[in-house]
Amino acid sequence: MPRLDAPIDELRDYRPAVAEPADFDAFWARTIADSRALARAPRLERVASPLTAVEVYDLEFSGFGGDPVRGWFLVPSGTRGRLPAVVEYLGYGGGRGLPHERLSWAASGYAYLLMDTRGQGSVWGTGGATPDPHGTGSSAPGFMTRGIDDPAAYYYRRVFTDAVLAIDAVRSLERVDPDRVAVAGTSQGGGISIAAAALAEGLVGAMPDVPFLCHFERAVGLTDRDPYQEIVRYLAVHRGASERVFETLSYFDGANFAKRARVPALFSVALMDPVCPPSTVYAARNLWGASAEIVEYAFNEHEGGQGEQWQRQAAWLAAALAG
Amino acid sequence: MPRLDAPIDELRDYRPAVAEPADFDAFWARTIADSRALARAPRLERVASPLTAVEVYDLEFSGFGGDPVRGWFLVPSGTRGRLPAVVEYLGYGGGRGLPHERLSWAASGYAYLLMDTRGQGSVWGTGGATPDPHGTGSSAPGFMTRGIDDPAAYYYRRVFTDAVLAIDAVRSLERVDPDRVAVAGTSQGGGISIAAAALAEGLVGAMPDVPFLCHFERAVGLTDRDPYQEIVRYLAVHRGASERVFETLSYFDGANFAKRARVPALFSVALMDPVCPPSTVYAARNLWGASAEIVEYAFNEHEGGQGEQWQRQAAWLAAALAG
Amino acid sequence: MPRLDAPIDELRDYRPAVAEPADFDAFWARTIADSRALARAPRLERVASPLTAVEVYDLEFSGFGGDPVRGWFLVPSGTRGRLPAVVEYLGYGGGRGLPHERLSWAASGYAYLLMDTRGQGSVWGTGGATPDPHGTGSSAPGFMTRGIDDPAAYYYRRVFTDAVLAIDAVRSLERVDPDRVAVAGTSQGGGISIAAAALAEGLVGAMPDVPFLCHFERAVGLTDRDPYQEIVRYLAVHRGASERVFETLSYFDGANFAKRARVPALFSVALMDPVCPPSTVYAARNLWGASAEIVEYAFNEHEGGQGEQWQRQAAWLAAALAG
Amino acid sequence: MPRLDAPIDELRDYRPAVAEPADFDAFWARTIADSRALARAPRLERVASPLTAVEVYDLEFSGFGGDPVRGWFLVPSGTRGRLPAVVEYLGYGGGRGLPHERLSWAASGYAYLLMDTRGQGSVWGTGGATPDPHGTGSSAPGFMTRGIDDPAAYYYRRVFTDAVLAIDAVRSLERVDPDRVAVAGTSQGGGISIAAAALAEGLVGAMPDVPFLCHFERAVGLTDRDPYQEIVRYLAVHRGASERVFETLSYFDGANFAKRARVPALFSVALMDPVCPPSTVYAARNLWGASAEIVEYAFNEHEGGQGEQWQRQAAWLAAALAG
Amino acid sequence: MPRLDAPIDELRDYRPAVAEPADFDAFWARTIADSRALARAPRLERVASPLTAVEVYDLEFSGFGGDPVRGWFLVPSGTRGRLPAVVEYLGYGGGRGLPHERLSWAASGYAYLLMDTRGQGSVWGTGGATPDPHGTGSSAPGFMTRGIDDPAAYYYRRVFTDAVLAIDAVRSLERVDPDRVAVAGTSQGGGISIAAAALAEGLVGAMPDVPFLCHFERAVGLTDRDPYQEIVRYLAVHRGASERVFETLSYFDGANFAKRARVPALFSVALMDPVCPPSTVYAARNLWGASAEIVEYAFNEHEGGQGEQWQRQAAWLAAALAG
Amino acid sequence: MPRLDAPIDELRDYRPAVAEPADFDAFWARTIADSRALARAPRLERVASPLTAVEVYDLEFSGFGGDPVRGWFLVPSGTRGRLPAVVEYLGYGGGRGLPHERLSWAASGYAYLLMDTRGQGSVWGTGGATPDPHGTGSSAPGFMTRGIDDPAAYYYRRVFTDAVLAIDAVRSLERVDPDRVAVAGTSQGGGISIAAAALAEGLVGAMPDVPFLCHFERAVGLTDRDPYQEIVRYLAVHRGASERVFETLSYFDGANFAKRARVPALFSVALMDPVCPPSTVYAARNLWGASAEIVEYAFNEHEGGQGEQWQRQAAWLAAALAG
Repeated sequence: MPRLDAPIDELRDYRPAVAEPADFDAFWARTIADSRALARAPRLERVASPLTAVEVYDLEFSGFGGDPVRGWFLVPSGTRGRLPAVVEYLGYGGGRGLPHERLSWAASGYAYLLMDTRGQGSVWGTGGATPDPHGTGSSAPGFMTRGIDDPAAYYYRRVFTDAVLAIDAVRSLERVDPDRVAVAGTSQGGGISIAAAALAEGLVGAMPDVPFLCHFERAVGLTDRDPYQEIVRYLAVHRGASERVFETLSYFDGANFAKRARVPALFSVALMDPVCPPSTVYAARNLWGASAEIVEYAFNEHEGGQGEQWQRQAAWLAAALAG
Repeated sequence: MPRLDAPIDELRDYRPAVAEPADFDAFWARTIADSRALARAPRLERVASPLTAVEVYDLEFSGFGGDPVRGWFLVPSGTRGRLPAVVEYLGYGGGRGLPHERLSWAASGYAYLLMDTRGQGSVWGTGGATPDPHGTGSSAPGFMTRGIDDPAAYYYRRVFTDAVLAIDAVRSLERVDPDRVAVAGTSQGGGISIAAAALAEGLVGAMPDVPFLCHFERAVGLTDRDPYQEIVRYLAVHRGASERVFETLSYFDGANFAKRARVPALFSVALMDPVCPPSTVYAARNLWGASAEIVEYAFNEHEGGQGEQWQRQAAWLAAALAG
Repeated sequence: MPRLDAPIDELRDYRPAVAEPADFDAFWARTIADSRALARAPRLERVASPLTAVEVYDLEFSGFGGDPVRGWFLVPSGTRGRLPAVVEYLGYGGGRGLPHERLSWAASGYAYLLMDTRGQGSVWGTGGATPDPHGTGSSAPGFMTRGIDDPAAYYYRRVFTDAVLAIDAVRSLERVDPDRVAVAGTSQGGGISIAAAALAEGLVGAMPDVPFLCHFERAVGLTDRDPYQEIVRYLAVHRGASERVFETLSYFDGANFAKRARVPALFSVALMDPVCPPSTVYAARNLWGASAEIVEYAFNEHEGGQGEQWQRQAAWLAAALAG
Repeated sequence: MPRLDAPIDELRDYRPAVAEPADFDAFWARTIADSRALARAPRLERVASPLTAVEVYDLEFSGFGGDPVRGWFLVPSGTRGRLPAVVEYLGYGGGRGLPHERLSWAASGYAYLLMDTRGQGSVWGTGGATPDPHGTGSSAPGFMTRGIDDPAAYYYRRVFTDAVLAIDAVRSLERVDPDRVAVAGTSQGGGISIAAAALAEGLVGAMPDVPFLCHFERAVGLTDRDPYQEIVRYLAVHRGASERVFETLSYFDGANFAKRARVPALFSVALMDPVCPPSTVYAARNLWGASAEIVEYAFNEHEGGQGEQWQRQAAWLAAALAG
Repeated sequence: MPRLDAPIDELRDYRPAVAEPADFDAFWARTIADSRALARAPRLERVASPLTAVEVYDLEFSGFGGDPVRGWFLVPSGTRGRLPAVVEYLGYGGGRGLPHERLSWAASGYAYLLMDTRGQGSVWGTGGATPDPHGTGSSAPGFMTRGIDDPAAYYYRRVFTDAVLAIDAVRSLERVDPDRVAVAGTSQGGGISIAAAALAEGLVGAMPDVPFLCHFERAVGLTDRDPYQEIVRYLAVHRGASERVFETLSYFDGANFAKRARVPALFSVALMDPVCPPSTVYAARNLWGASAEIVEYAFNEHEGGQGEQWQRQAAWLAAALAG
Repeated sequence: MPRLDAPIDELRDYRPAVAEPADFDAFWARTIADSRALARAPRLERVASPLTAVEVYDLEFSGFGGDPVRGWFLVPSGTRGRLPAVVEYLGYGGGRGLPHERLSWAASGYAYLLMDTRGQGSVWGTGGATPDPHGTGSSAPGFMTRGIDDPAAYYYRRVFTDAVLAIDAVRSLERVDPDRVAVAGTSQGGGISIAAAALAEGLVGAMPDVPFLCHFERAVGLTDRDPYQEIVRYLAVHRGASERVFETLSYFDGANFAKRARVPALFSVALMDPVCPPSTVYAARNLWGASAEIVEYAFNEHEGGQGEQWQRQAAWLAAALAG
């Protein structure tokens, strides 16, 4: 059935009670502080490219636990001084790929960082360059269940920390205006941008596009598609583990980050999305702690608005910066 | 089986005898001449966009039979004078979409035209804007069998003519150096670029990327995937029509255009491609009437080299222009 | 889930508010009148056949805009004088095929016309013989979205007009009693028969069997199967077009034709039908403007009642004619 | 790969050595004789029907072991005297259904018997009416492995015997000319018609259409589709049974019956048939013991020629009878 | 959608009104009595095996109508005297296989009988050894519709009777304590164990694991998976047969047996089970006529708890025997 | 096509040239020695269980780099002294599960160790208990590409070392006769057993059952199924990496280990296996450096011989020990 979730009117008002651990804020404060304490200055290296309209840099910065994380940093050619910046996070399984593959923000006057997702980058596109030097307990193929029996060991603890430190890194660059940084991302990248928006300080906006990683307990009963399904696969084998697993996940739930967000947001949702069911997106958007617009794509699956959403984002961000 | 076609050593030497109608050249000479006779000057209209690094224009030119065809024409901001140009054709089912979606060429110093494929643009991406005002006999869903019982009525007669007249149009623009125009395209776009390279005069190069529309008779027995399969579907119903159908297709076979090409080419092929089987690509490349390099992607399906192939193209075209 | 729609008790009373354009009647009155004005007398040609129990004729009549439309016209051998007649319309993708393939009505004493669906006839069966000489804007593979941005250009405007003029044509034949004509059809043919029953005058009955083309807005959210899914595919690309598209479709919705029907009907519905969900069939049946029986097939998918439904129809039509 | 079997030139000459048991002829002579000894006169009962062009009878005759078998017997209305007759056997899983569903032969001047396949008739269509009152050892779902460890107990021993006795029965009817009887069938029906043509005496022709049940040893390694795959499923569980199983099947292999056929045949084959691979059909045709034409459908899967093949059959049979 | 059935709170209280024939008890009393009257003493034959920890016997006993039924009977080596026993029934399509494949009960101090399911044993595992010497009317592939138009002829009448007589047989063996016998089974085996628990006298417990064969009328509308789907397939062809079919099934519905059970039970249910939907399991468990625990596997499909459930059963049965 | 690989006669003689790194032996000698140097004595802990015929122990031993690895160690109850032992490795994705799930060897008089596969154990069964505390570079979901760009970092370096140290551990136990230890495993477990047989000293036999991890270069072009397909997925993204990847894999190829084996082996192969194509199994078997029997399952897919193969193994091992 194309529309597998609740009717649109219910979705627009959907504000579920999402379980939240008592030490959520302490956990994240400590996590970020510990990794910031280990951070070295980012390394920026100019990369040769056929591109003439943008300058391309290979950026390496310190992520979780001081681990090196890579990204492409682009600035429009022929500009000077500090520019507003967009930090983008990637969808599940992809890597930063090649520098010419995502030019829209840099070709529109922004400094732009595309952050690699550690360990990922071997499923689609042209590859990732960032290892994840941490092991895991018994896990299902994929990244969703690595370390899932302990919040401290969970994979996304490292990724979300990387995301916050990516913002720190980009703010430290001479071509970036640190007061005018926004975050964006599609699917997993959208979920990461929600966490980053809650954990980083002083952003100008967040643009989660069909975000993943929200409202896990509902998601796993609603979709039979990966990556949420990886959690089901794990629980189907570890039959007694669901309480512990969902407790871990509650530290990483986009809905819990959303409550803490204090920055305006532009969401998107696809109403026929079988991968990130609409209600999980609305849960984050409706619980968002600041103004949160949402663009609804009534006939799309997980591809969402694609280029059309970028046009919306470009207009929205320009207005936010102008505002 | 991932490698469904012949072994790589055979493929590299594969030069099949592809049936060719006696009046192939006359057919196309007349077709192009007739439509050129009906052509009006292209209409170029500046379009507002968040993009700052490129100027965006909506181009309308006269295609087959004088029918209006649309495209996005981009030039790098801050440049002046006549630039080398790339004309790109689209994959099956897509439309020109939104102007910011394909920035690589324009962000690398080229004038760039992305031509809509008439009637298409409703399967993936963000849409097409060019109707195909011609009807058809009994046809299977899709575009492959529209008018397939008569070369004069066949859908790709109109598309290939549009492709040649797109080159004419782009050459007439004041920002384009008419002696430095190349064509490119992926899948269907690759097939169109092969036809355009044979039918247009004086190009500097053609870059067919995992091209479709080559060596139909082999393709239909080798793949069970659309769009080649549309032809099988048609012939499964019109049981006596295969002779007529393959005669029609011989006027449109990339292998026959390849023999007539007099411009250097950079092909790509994916050795696990179930949509455009490798042997059909090698047929066109090995019969090509001028130098023809080919990049082999040994472990890819129809996605081919993606951004990696563009990097190869950018280097190859720069060398060709420098040469 | 086999039963994907509402419970049977709800279905039997389901009378949705289906959007209806203000000029629905004017649009159709003008459309039919314009095409009738262009109609020439039908051409009837005896066809050699191994069949001895029926006489076979190839019928060509003027459809929409005077376009020639083909069909098989059969009359039982050894009869004379004017017979009651059945006009049948075809399912999606099929053509009139070969004359011996549908003998039931002619072998039961009826004159029988099987109308080709213009442009179709290349997906299943043994082929169609009627072109659709009209082009289209950007459309998805299939027939559902051809011209969908304008009621005047929409594909089914031509098909429904053909259907009405087929009745005109059959009534003009010397072996047909013009006062005893019924329409029938399965799936798409059922949808066409609903439109024909509302637009033609003085029929004795309509027999829509698991009809398609009813209650589009509900259908597209309920089934992920073609052909309704073609509309979703179109709207997934043309993201802003849904209002315009559904306005177009409201001129062609079986539910709106049903309200205008003044002739008795025998519907069928399959309760596990994932192609034409039961509620869309009940919408048309429950809004039907005259008596409307319905046969429910509780365990069938889109194949519905098949030969069993024909037996019901034969008995029902005999009674209607006797009545 | 659409063409999964050998190239067409090899197929046309393909004459495999198919294993044949020494007592093949004795086995069948005894089987037929035993059942003929138990046969009672057929029971013919007129059935009410809306059909006017044919008279419909419910026929019950004695099949294997005297078991009652049902069929529809049709004769053209308004004829008299003895007519040539066609006996048709059904495809796998279907039953005789309703009398109006197959009118072509009776509407072309033939007496026509459609024989039910015992036990089948619950997968497609409108149902069968003939039980199979014999049990089975451990078997996979379906009919292919019932009694497969013993030729005497194998399901098709009963079915093929029914087929021969159906011919006896039809020949005994007063409206049938016993010297002008032909057999036909599609898929399983084609396989049965091959056996019947070899086992019955004095037929005028056999028309196996994309026949099943030929050259089992090759079939099971070539297709992964049911029903041949049922045998693979059985052997995957009964790991040591393949010798015994293939010995049983050798008594029922269409290739072995074909060698014994002394009646002209019209075969059909679909070159993209994944259910009954072409080489298995050619094996039977090329080993046929009399003249054997074959119609090749180059782009069809198991649907084969459908109505087109019937036209071929009608012409071929008329010529054979005239001959 | 992974959770396709009602919410867990509803499931836990779900007590549907399941239709029950007036002569249900009489039907079964007569059936069991008739077969018991035909029973001979079981035949037990020691089988050589590499196993040292258990003794292996091939058991043949009289099942329905005196038909011979096979099973493996295992007793722990080095024990003596009468042991408590477990009788296990098999899942759909499997056979008793090889004696070493199910050692858990015998390796835990129990006498153990694994009963073959007549006619089955050719779909998975290593085979069955028990024929079903009874024929059937028109049926769909599989065992669900054999004889489904008559309770007396229905396949499961024979199987359930076998199950009861297996208990009789095991009780008659010298190594078994007849007062300490329990039944178990997974899926079909679970359904059989429910029937056996209601029909046999004086068991100590029943352990139906994700049981099949419960609440047919709901199941067929809820799952599109075999084997329940076999019934839908049959009804889709035999369009008028549903009343008769469901009447037959009411004699075999686990929900009706459950009402009559007077022995404690340990059920399991998998909440994402698309083969035996949870509500059908809860129907039997909630209507159970004695104490009935249930283990819920929230994230499993039809595999359920697997080895974990056996651990639960072992503890539960030990407590029941101790109790 | 069920038989997707070469004909059986070719397979039986198939001895491909498998690339082998010059320092293969040095690499493994160093690897094993380094980890042996870090090993502590195994920890053995009795576990409560309903099982009476076997004693159950939780074994923890030092694997690669001293990492703790878990397994179940079972000995037959009522035995004493040193027993011959079987060490079994697991199939891909599974964990050691629960102790009662694999009783055949211990119930046949053997000491038995089932080794967990580090990091795995969350895809099927009842779970694993051994983490893999090592990170990875960019990898595809699954275990096949973790560390694949460097033999020293590759996942299976750790697993194969664990396998050898498991043998060391089991030999050190007081109930095990260190001179009578054999290895076994199915699929991945079979591949591990091949490596262990080559790297450990003085085993009495190896029993690889449908082994995985053999002849990677051929496998990736022959099957489109996981887990081999994970490598293809990786190479499809990391387009330039194939040389490096296959060099890494050559250190882990079962064919290269097979050449070094000096212990008799009993292989099995399934001729319709789409997961571990037959030729990859024959490559290892035919290159095996000692006697190597093979059991062929002609009609099985990757399930192979199941319980039947265990019976073969039990007889073969008893003979080997007796020999």
